[in-house]
Amino acid sequence: MANITKKVSWSSRADESGATAEGTRLLNGSEPRRLIQFSEGRSLFQIGRLSTVDLEEEMMSEEQESLRGRPKEIPHNEKLLSLKYESLDYDNIENQLFLEEERRMGYMNFRCLEISRWVVCGLIGFLTGLIACVIDIVVEQLAGIKYQVVKKLQEPGWVVASLNGLKLKELLPSHSMVRQIQTHCSETVDPPIAAGSGIPQIKCYLNGVKIPRVVRLKTLLVKVFGVICSVVGGLAVGKEGPMIHSGAVVAAGVSQGRSTSLKRDFNYIFEYFRRDTEKRDFVSAGAAAGVSAAFGAPIGGVLFSLEEGASFWNQMLTWRIFFASMISTFTLNFFLSIYHNKPGDLSNPGLINFGRFENNSQSVAYNLYEIPFFIAMGAIGGLLGALFNILNYWLTIFRIRYVHRPCLQVMEAMLVAAVTATVAFTMIYFSNDCQPLSSEHAEEYPLQLFCADGEYNSMATAFFNTPEKSVRSLFHNQPRTYNPLTLGLFTLTYFLLACWTYGLAVSAGVFIPSLLIGAAWGRLCGILLASSGSMWADPGKYALIGAAAQLGGIVRMTLSLTVIMVEATGNVTYGLPIMLVLMTAKIVGDYFVEGLYDIHIKLQSVPFLHWEAPGTSHWLTAREVMSSPVTCLNKIEKVGTIVDTLSNTSTNHNGFPVVVQVTGGDEPAKLCGLILRSQLIVLLKHKVFVELARSRLTQRKLQLKDFRDAYPRFPPIQSIHVSQDERECMMDLTEFMNPTPYTVPQETSLPRVFKLFRALGLRHLVVVDEENRDSKVVGLVTRKDLARYHLGKHGLEELQLAQT
Amino acid sequence: MANITKKVSWSSRADESGATAEGTRLLNGSEPRRLIQFSEGRSLFQIGRLSTVDLEEEMMSEEQESLRGRPKEIPHNEKLLSLKYESLDYDNIENQLFLEEERRMGYMNFRCLEISRWVVCGLIGFLTGLIACVIDIVVEQLAGIKYQVVKKLQEPGWVVASLNGLKLKELLPSHSMVRQIQTHCSETVDPPIAAGSGIPQIKCYLNGVKIPRVVRLKTLLVKVFGVICSVVGGLAVGKEGPMIHSGAVVAAGVSQGRSTSLKRDFNYIFEYFRRDTEKRDFVSAGAAAGVSAAFGAPIGGVLFSLEEGASFWNQMLTWRIFFASMISTFTLNFFLSIYHNKPGDLSNPGLINFGRFENNSQSVAYNLYEIPFFIAMGAIGGLLGALFNILNYWLTIFRIRYVHRPCLQVMEAMLVAAVTATVAFTMIYFSNDCQPLSSEHAEEYPLQLFCADGEYNSMATAFFNTPEKSVRSLFHNQPRTYNPLTLGLFTLTYFLLACWTYGLAVSAGVFIPSLLIGAAWGRLCGILLASSGSMWADPGKYALIGAAAQLGGIVRMTLSLTVIMVEATGNVTYGLPIMLVLMTAKIVGDYFVEGLYDIHIKLQSVPFLHWEAPGTSHWLTAREVMSSPVTCLNKIEKVGTIVDTLSNTSTNHNGFPVVVQVTGGDEPAKLCGLILRSQLIVLLKHKVFVELARSRLTQRKLQLKDFRDAYPRFPPIQSIHVSQDERECMMDLTEFMNPTPYTVPQETSLPRVFKLFRALGLRHLVVVDEENRDSKVVGLVTRKDLARYHLGKHGLEELQLAQT
Repeated sequence: MANITKKVSWSSRADESGATAEGTRLLNGSEPRRLIQFSEGRSLFQIGRLSTVDLEEEMMSEEQESLRGRPKEIPHNEKLLSLKYESLDYDNIENQLFLEEERRMGYMNFRCLEISRWVVCGLIGFLTGLIACVIDIVVEQLAGIKYQVVKKLQEPGWVVASLNGLKLKELLPSHSMVRQIQTHCSETVDPPIAAGSGIPQIKCYLNGVKIPRVVRLKTLLVKVFGVICSVVGGLAVGKEGPMIHSGAVVAAGVSQGRSTSLKRDFNYIFEYFRRDTEKRDFVSAGAAAGVSAAFGAPIGGVLFSLEEGASFWNQMLTWRIFFASMISTFTLNFFLSIYHNKPGDLSNPGLINFGRFENNSQSVAYNLYEIPFFIAMGAIGGLLGALFNILNYWLTIFRIRYVHRPCLQVMEAMLVAAVTATVAFTMIYFSNDCQPLSSEHAEEYPLQLFCADGEYNSMATAFFNTPEKSVRSLFHNQPRTYNPLTLGLFTLTYFLLACWTYGLAVSAGVFIPSLLIGAAWGRLCGILLASSGSMWADPGKYALIGAAAQLGGIVRMTLSLTVIMVEATGNVTYGLPIMLVLMTAKIVGDYFVEGLYDIHIKLQSVPFLHWEAPGTSHWLTAREVMSSPVTCLNKIEKVGTIVDTLSNTSTNHNGFPVVVQVTGGDEPAKLCGLILRSQLIVLLKHKVFVELARSRLTQRKLQLKDFRDAYPRFPPIQSIHVSQDERECMMDLTEFMNPTPYTVPQETSLPRVFKLFRALGLRHLVVVDEENRDSKVVGLVTRKDLARYHLGKHGLEELQLAQT
Repeated sequence: MANITKKVSWSSRADESGATAEGTRLLNGSEPRRLIQFSEGRSLFQIGRLSTVDLEEEMMSEEQESLRGRPKEIPHNEKLLSLKYESLDYDNIENQLFLEEERRMGYMNFRCLEISRWVVCGLIGFLTGLIACVIDIVVEQLAGIKYQVVKKLQEPGWVVASLNGLKLKELLPSHSMVRQIQTHCSETVDPPIAAGSGIPQIKCYLNGVKIPRVVRLKTLLVKVFGVICSVVGGLAVGKEGPMIHSGAVVAAGVSQGRSTSLKRDFNYIFEYFRRDTEKRDFVSAGAAAGVSAAFGAPIGGVLFSLEEGASFWNQMLTWRIFFASMISTFTLNFFLSIYHNKPGDLSNPGLINFGRFENNSQSVAYNLYEIPFFIAMGAIGGLLGALFNILNYWLTIFRIRYVHRPCLQVMEAMLVAAVTATVAFTMIYFSNDCQPLSSEHAEEYPLQLFCADGEYNSMATAFFNTPEKSVRSLFHNQPRTYNPLTLGLFTLTYFLLACWTYGLAVSAGVFIPSLLIGAAWGRLCGILLASSGSMWADPGKYALIGAAAQLGGIVRMTLSLTVIMVEATGNVTYGLPIMLVLMTAKIVGDYFVEGLYDIHIKLQSVPFLHWEAPGTSHWLTAREVMSSPVTCLNKIEKVGTIVDTLSNTSTNHNGFPVVVQVTGGDEPAKLCGLILRSQLIVLLKHKVFVELARSRLTQRKLQLKDFRDAYPRFPPIQSIHVSQDERECMMDLTEFMNPTPYTVPQETSLPRVFKLFRALGLRHLVVVDEENRDSKVVGLVTRKDLARYHLGKHGLEELQLAQT
C-alpha cells in the first residue's frame, strides 16, 4: 500500500507544475484552438464535448472571460472527478407525452415491440459474428503472407530477414496509426475513439456515463482496421478486447435504426428504442455478443454484460442478451467453417480457441494435492498483475504528460513496433532452442533460422505466430517442446512489451497478451515441478492455470472471467481450479492496486459508480452530498429565463426541478416535476412558446417523435437562435416534464441514496426539505456527487470535481 | 389460449360450490379447531400463521363474531391473491439505532463482516455438499439392497417378485409419509413443509414472500429422509429438486447462527446477519449450492439464484454465491471419491451426472442440418410440457378439493406407489425387449427376468434403476440397445406416473422425471431418424436434446437451465442446440399455460412479483393501486392506541406511517417515518413506555440486539399483556422508525411504482399527496397491491384479495 501513496503524491506534485505550465500558455498566447488539440491528444478517451466547449468559450460574455484564465487542471490525478462527462438517463422520463403513448398502445403493440427486440438482438449477434469473422480471416491471410516473406528471406542471411521483418512490422501498425491520424485531421470535431481495447469505455457506458462518440460507426471502422494492423504487425496485442467494443457499436447502430455517419435513417421501425434505457439494453447485448465471438463464450458474454452493466436483472433481457451471444458465436463458427472448407463443422466458436483439453488422458485431470500449487500460482499471478498495472499506470501518466500530440503518439507506436521486432530478433538470435519438427503437433509456421534441417526455432515460433497460436501451443504442445530458459526469457520480454503496448494509441486488447505471459510462466512452473519429480505436473495444465492467474491479476474480473475461461477451455472440469486461481489473484492483486480497467477509468476522472456506497459512509446524508443551490424553473416559465439558465456555463446543469408557486405568496415554491436540458433544447428549437398579452397562439403540438428524432445528439444552446421578442414569450412545461421524479428527504443516509440511484439508474435525484411542512427543493444529487466518495487507505476520501 | 379460459371458468364454478360447502360447515358446527386442520391439510405450503389466526379468533370480541360466518374462500382459484402471506423486508430499516451502529463501526469492522460472510458461504457450501453426499450414498446403498432382493426373487417366478417388489415399493414412500404425519401430529402448530420439490417455495422466498417455516431445520430433516424413501421406493421422482430447498435451509440456519429446533444460539458472531436483507443473500447462496450439488453445475446454480431471486445484482454477492456453489460441488465430489475408493478423483461433481459426451467421435458433434430437427423437438417438448402442466393443474385442484386430510394424502401416496409398481411389472411382463449383456456398457443392475441367459430385460432396467441411471443409459448406451416400442411405452407410462406423482405429499423433484421422459422420447426420435436413413442421428444425442426439451417445456426456466444442462453434460459444444431447444419449448409452452412452478405458486395465491409491471398498465397510477385509508401513528403515541391498532384483525397491516401533527392544528399531519408491526411488538414487549403526568421514567434503552434477538419470529400481539395503566402511557417512536421511507406522489404510474418496489425489494411504499402543499399520507402500496395486476388473455386483469 505504501507504493500507492508514494505514487499519488508524486503525481500530484507533477500535476501542479503541469497545470501551471498550461495556465501560463493560456494567459500568454490565448490559442484556444491549440489548447483543444492539446487536450485532445492527451486524453485516452479523446475528450468529448470539446467543440461545444469551444463554441461556448467563443460566445462567452466579457464578465466570464476572467474565468478562462484559471488554469485547467490535468485530469490524470485520481483525486479528481471530471465534470465533462454527462450521464445517461436509465430511468424512463415518464412525462405526459410518454404516458399518453404508452396508454394508446395495446397488447399487440407490446408484443410487436417484444418481437422486434428479439429481431434486433439477432441482428446484433449476426453482425458482430460477421465482424469477428472478417477480422479473423484477414489477420490469418496477412499473417500467412508475412510468414512467407520472412521464410523466403531467411536463407540469404538473418540480417536481411530481420531488417525486412522490422520494416514489415513497423509498416503495419504505423499504417493503422496513419489511418487514425487521417481521421483525426480530416474531422477534428469528431475523432473516433478507437484506441485501446474499448473495454473501459464500454464499462463506463453501461455504468451510465456518456463517453462521447463511443458507439459510432466510424469508431467501429477504425477499430477493426486498426486491430488487424496491430495484430499482424506483431505488436503484443490481442484482437479480442476490441471485439467487445465492436459489438457495442453494432448494437447501438442497429437498435437506433440510423447512422449519422451513413446519413441513413430507417425510421419508424426502431423509433421506440431511441432512449437511453432501451439503448443500454441493446449495448449490453452487443458487448455480450462481442465477448461471445471473441472467446466462443456465450454464457461468459452474458455474465460480462451483467457484471459490468445491468444493475437490474431482468429475466427476459438476460435471455435476449444470451440469444445475441449465441447467434454471434454461431455466425462466426459457421462462416469460419466455410472458410476452412469444412462447412457445418462447428468447432471454432471464438476468435481464440484454447483447443481441447481432453479428459481421457489422466495427466490432464487435476488431483486434489495440486490445488495448493494452483493457489500459489494464483498468488504469483496477482503479484505479477499488480506489477503490470503499476508499471502501466506510471507509463500512462507519462503518456498523458508528454506524449499527447498525434505525431508523438505515432512515433511512440512506431518505436514500440521497432523495439518489439528488435527484441524478438535478438532473442531469436541468442536462443539455441531447436526442436525437432514432428508431424503430429506441427506448428503452422515453423521457422528454421539457425537450426538444423528438420528442426525449428521454438523462440522464433513463439514470437512469430499470432499470440493466439502461441497460447494454444503453450497449452497443448508435448512436454519438452519448450526449454525453460526460452520460456523465462519470453515471459520477461513479453511482459515488458505488453505493458508498454497497452495504452498506446492503437486498437489493442490486453486479454491475449496476458494469457500468453501467464501461459509462458505457467508452463515454466509445470516444467520445473515435473523436473523435481512430480510426474503428474502436465506443463499444458499449468500453462492454463498460469494464464488464468495472470489475466485475473491484471483485469480482476470475477465470475464472468471464470466462465469465459471455462468456456474457452471447453471443459467444465477446470472450473474449480480456475475459480480458486482467479480468486487468489484478485485478492492478492487488490491488496496492491486496482484492476487495469479501473486504473484507466480513474485516470480519466470518470464519475464511475461502484456497486455499493463505501462501507463507512453512513454518517453522510443527502444534505452533505447534494449539489446546492439548484436552479429551478417554473411550470410556466419565461423563454428568456430558460435560455439564460441553459447558457450559463458556470452551472452547467442538465436537469432542472420544475416548481410551482403557491398562491399564498411568501411560501416557498413546491416541486412538481423535473425537466432535462435536452428536452428544453428541443422545445426551444421547435419554438413551443405561448405569447402573453395576445390570445394563445396555435402552439405547435410537440410529439415524442420530435424528441426521439433529436436523440441522442441534442444541439448546444448556442446554436439555437431566440429573438428578443421570443424571449418575452412563456413556455408551458407541464406536458414535457417528468411529473413524478424520485425524491428523498435531506436526512437520508448516503448508502440509501446510493442504492436508490444505482438500482434505478437515475441521473438526477431531487432532495426535498420536509421540515418546513413544504416539499421545498433544497438540492439535487447527481452521479458526480455520489462518485465523489470512495474508500481510500485512511477511510472515506472525497474526490474533487474539476471542469476538465 | 382457449384452453386456459375453459379451465379457469371451470375452476371458478367449482370454487363457488366449494366455498358454499365450507361456509355451511362453519355456520353449522362452529368447529374452529377442525377448520384449521382442514386448511392445514389442504395447503401445499401448509398455511402459515394459522395458530396466530386461531388465537386471534378466540380473542375476537363479540361484535366481530359475525365476520366469522363469512365463508372462507378456497385458495385454489388463480383469480385470488391470499392476504395470509407476509412479505419480507429487503430494504434495510435505517432507523436511528441502525445508523448509530453503522457509524460506530470502523473500516476494520466492515472488513471482518465481509470475511465472516465468506466464511458463512463456505460453510453453507460445505454442509450442502455433505447433505447431497449423504443422500446419494444412502440411496445407492438402499437401491443395491432392493436390487439384490428382486434379483433373488426373480428365479422362483415373477409373481413373487412382483408382489415383493410392490411391497417394498409401497413400504418406503409410505414410511416417508408416516414420518411426516408423525411430525404433523406431534407438533400441530409447526408442521414442516417438506412436501414437493421446494423450488416454488424458494422462488417465493427469494421474491420476498414469507412462506412460513420454509427454512427450518425440521423441514430439512424430513425433506432429506423423505426424498431418500421416495427415490428408493421407485416413485417417479428425483432427488435433485429437494437439494435446492435443503441448501436454502442450511443457509438460513448457518447464517443466523442459531436454531430454534435445536434450541441453540451461537450468539454474537452472526448477530449482524439477523435481518431479511442479509438472510436473503445467504439463502440465495444456499439455493445455488443446492443446484450446484444436485447437477454439478456451480455456474448454473449462481444463475438460478440470480434468475429467481436477486433483483439487484451485486458483484461481490455473486462472487460469494459462486464460492458457495463451488465448495458445495467440490465437497460432494471429494466425499464421493472417497466413498468410491478413488480419493482425489474429481469426476462426480453432482448427484446426477450425464456422463461424458466425448467430442472425438464425429457422430456426437452435431451438424448444421440437424438444427431444424432440434427445434422441432423443442416444439414437441413445449407441447408435452404444457400437457404435463395442464394435467398436473387439474390434479392439483382435485387434490386441493378432495385430498386434503393427512390420512387421505398417505393413502394417495400409497396408491401411487402401488400403481407405479403394478404398471412397471405389467410393462415388464409384456415386454420382450431382451438385450445381450455386453461387458463394456454394462448396466449396473441388469435384470434377467424372462430373457435368455446372457441377456437382460431393457424395460425392467429402465424401470428398476434409479432414474438418474436410466437417464444416463438413455444418453450413452450403444444404438440398438433400446427397442422403439419399449421407449414409446415407457415414455407414455412414465409421463403419466410423473404427472400424478408431482404434487403428492412426498419430497420429490420433477427435474429427473422430466429428463427421463424427454430422454426416452428423444432417443425414440433419434432411432426413428436413424432408421429412416439418417446415419448421423446418434440416439444418445437426440436423447439429450429431448431431455432438454421436456424439462424446458415443464419448468420454463431460461438461462439458468441452459447452463445447468451444459454443465451437467460437461461439454460446451451443446450450448447452442440446448439453448434453441429450451427457447422453442418455452415459447410453445407459454402459448398454452405457464410453467409448473408458476402454476403451483398461483394455485397457492401467493402475491408473487414478476420482473416488470404488465405492459399495458401505464394508465394505472398509485392512486388506484394503493391501499387506503392507512392507519397512521403519531411520533409520540399512546400505548393503548398502538395495542388496539395492532390487535385490529380487520386491517391486518404490518407497516404504519408515522406522522407528526403540525402545530397549526387544522392542517393534516405530516409524514415523518415508517414503523413495522414487528418493531412495535418488540417495543411493547420490552415496555419502552413513557408515563405521562410524572417525570420521565428511566425509559429502558432498547438496542438493535433486542430486535435481532426477536427476529424472525416475533410474537403475536395477543401474547403481550399490557395493563390498563400501561395503556395510558406514551411511546416515543422517533428512534425506532425509519425516518426516510421511500415515497411516491399519487400520480406515479404503476410501472414506475413497480420498478421502484421491485428494484429495491420494498415491503411498504408510502403514497403522499403533494397537491395540498403538504406531504400528507394518502395510501400505502404493498406487495399485494402490485401483484394483483396481471396480464390475462383480455388485457390487464385484477385479482381479488382474500383473507385465506
